[in-house]
Amino acid sequence: MDRAQKLVTDMLAGHRLSLARLISKVENRDDDLAAIMKLLYPHSGKAQVWGVTGPPGAGKSTLVDRMAQHLRAQGKKVAIVAVDPSSPFTGGAILGDRIRMQQHSGDTGVYIRSLGTRGKHGGLSHATKEVVLVLDAAGFDVVLVETAGVGQTELDVLRLAQSVLVIVVPESGDSIQVMKAGLMEIADVFAVNKSDRPEADKMVRELVTMVGMSDHTAESWMIPVHKTEALRNLGVDEVIKSIEAHQQYLTKSGQRDVKAREFLKNEVADILAERLHHTLKGAFETTSGQELLDQLVKREIDPYKAADVISGV
Amino acid sequence: MDRAQKLVTDMLAGHRLSLARLISKVENRDDDLAAIMKLLYPHSGKAQVWGVTGPPGAGKSTLVDRMAQHLRAQGKKVAIVAVDPSSPFTGGAILGDRIRMQQHSGDTGVYIRSLGTRGKHGGLSHATKEVVLVLDAAGFDVVLVETAGVGQTELDVLRLAQSVLVIVVPESGDSIQVMKAGLMEIADVFAVNKSDRPEADKMVRELVTMVGMSDHTAESWMIPVHKTEALRNLGVDEVIKSIEAHQQYLTKSGQRDVKAREFLKNEVADILAERLHHTLKGAFETTSGQELLDQLVKREIDPYKAADVISGV
Repeated sequence: MDRAQKLVTDMLAGHRLSLARLISKVENRDDDLAAIMKLLYPHSGKAQVWGVTGPPGAGKSTLVDRMAQHLRAQGKKVAIVAVDPSSPFTGGAILGDRIRMQQHSGDTGVYIRSLGTRGKHGGLSHATKEVVLVLDAAGFDVVLVETAGVGQTELDVLRLAQSVLVIVVPESGDSIQVMKAGLMEIADVFAVNKSDRPEADKMVRELVTMVGMSDHTAESWMIPVHKTEALRNLGVDEVIKSIEAHQQYLTKSGQRDVKAREFLKNEVADILAERLHHTLKGAFETTSGQELLDQLVKREIDPYKAADVISGV
Repeated sequence: MDRAQKLVTDMLAGHRLSLARLISKVENRDDDLAAIMKLLYPHSGKAQVWGVTGPPGAGKSTLVDRMAQHLRAQGKKVAIVAVDPSSPFTGGAILGDRIRMQQHSGDTGVYIRSLGTRGKHGGLSHATKEVVLVLDAAGFDVVLVETAGVGQTELDVLRLAQSVLVIVVPESGDSIQVMKAGLMEIADVFAVNKSDRPEADKMVRELVTMVGMSDHTAESWMIPVHKTEALRNLGVDEVIKSIEAHQQYLTKSGQRDVKAREFLKNEVADILAERLHHTLKGAFETTSGQELLDQLVKREIDPYKAADVISGV
C-alpha cells in the first residue's frame, strides 16, 4: 500500500493525525494530492456545508462555537474551517485554533482548522474546497466554513457552502451597507448578533423589510432574521433550526443538486487552472520561453499574442 | 477604422472620455479587449508604477493625494488607481472618486479611478494590471496603485508595482504585526503616517531595527522609514524622494528588468486563465459536459479524472 493510500485508509478509520496530515497536504498542494483526492472523493458528498460570514467584530467565532456545541448535543460530528484571506495583517490563526479546541477538548466529534493565505493566486478558495471534501469524506455531518468578511476570496469560499448564515451587528446604518453589499444575494439566514445593544430591534425590522422587498415567489426561500447573543447562548437554536429548514428546502426544491453541480464545475475549473499554472511555469523556463519574454519586454509582441504562442493557437 | 482602433487613437491623442471608456472596457472584460490591448501594448512600458498599501485608517488616500500634488508640481502626469477588493462591505467607490477628483479639478494631468469586485474569481488583479497598462500607454508618468489592505487580491495587485510604499500608523504593537505580515517582503519604503501621535518615534525605531535585521548585502536596497503627516503635508517630499531613489536602484541593479519580466509572465498567465474559464463554461454546457457532471454528482468519477477528460489528456 503506498503512502497516499495508507493515509486515506487511516483517516477513513478515524485516525485524527492522518486527517490533520491530509489537510496539510491539501494546503501545501502536495505532489500526492491528485492521488489522495481520487481515493477520498467516492467517500464524500454526505456532509452538509454551512457558510458563516459577517463584518469583523460581529462575533462570528463565538456564534460558530455555540452552533458547534448545539450540533454536538444532537449527536452530530462537526468540523469548523476558519478561512482568513487577510491573515498577513491579523495573524495568530494557529494559536486561535488551540484556544478554540480547548473549549471542545476531549471531544473527537469536533475538529477545528484555520486556513490562511499560504497558497498562491486563487489558491485559498480551491484549497478550502478540497479541505471541505476531506472533512466530508472523514464523516463529519456538518462542516462550518467561517470567513472573516466578504472580499473576493471570501465570496469564492462561501460559494462552496450549501447554506450561508450572515451575521450582522445592530449598529445603525449597517442595514444600508448590507443592501449595498449584495449580502442579500448570499444570505440564506440572517443573525443580528450582540442583540442586547439598543439598535437591535431596528436592525431586525430593517432586515425583515429588505427580505420582504426582494424578488421572490411562493416557492422561493424567505430569508429568516434572528436575534442572537452568542456570548449568552441566546437564539442559537433558532438559527440552527432555520439552517436545517434551508437544507430541507434545498432538497425539496432541487437546489441541492444545482449547487452540487456548480461546486463540482468550480472544482474541475480550479484543478485545470492549477495545472495551467504549472504548465506556464515550465513554459517560461525554456529557452524559447525566455525569448518570448525578451520580445514582450521589447514590445515586439503583445501579451495576447504570447498567450497564443504558448497555448499553440 | 474599427471601434477599438478609433477609441485607442482618440485616447492616445489625449481624449479623456476615450480613456475612461477604455478602462470601463477592461473592467467589464469587453469582447474587444484583446484587440484593444494589442493596439495599446506597443505604447506602454514607460510609466513608473508605485504601489501604496497599509491597514484601514492609516490615511492612505490622503497621503496618495498629497503625493500626486507633489508629482504634479514636478510637472509629471499622475494616475491614481484605487483598488478595493472588499468593496461589498465598504462601498461608495464612485462617490469617493468624485470627491477626490474635486481636489485636482481642472487639472488634466491627474486621473483617478476606483476598481472594485465587479469581476469574477481572480479577475480584479488581472483587470487592474490591464488598467495600469492603459494608463501607461495614455502617457501618465506615474501610476499610483492604492490598495485597502494586504489580503490575497491586494498582494496580487501590489505585485504589478515596481516600488511599494507601506503606510503604517504609530499605535504600539503594529510593528510586530508588520513583521508577522511579511510586509518586509513587499515594502520598498515605509511611511509612519499620523506621526504626531505619541508612539510615532517608537514605531520608527522598531521599523528601522527590523530593516537592519533583515538579510541584505552592501548592494541590496535598504528600506527607508519616514515619518509623515499627510493631513499637514509633512514628510511627503521625503517619501517621494525615497521612491524615486528606489526606481533608480531598480534600473542600476537590473531589478527593473526582472520585475518587468515577472509582470509580463503574470499577464500572459492571466490571459490564458481567462481563456480557460471561457472554454470550461462552454464545455459544461454541452450534452457530454452535462453527462460528466452527472457522473461527478453520482461519485462515479472524481474531479481530477473529469479535468483529464475535459482537457483531453
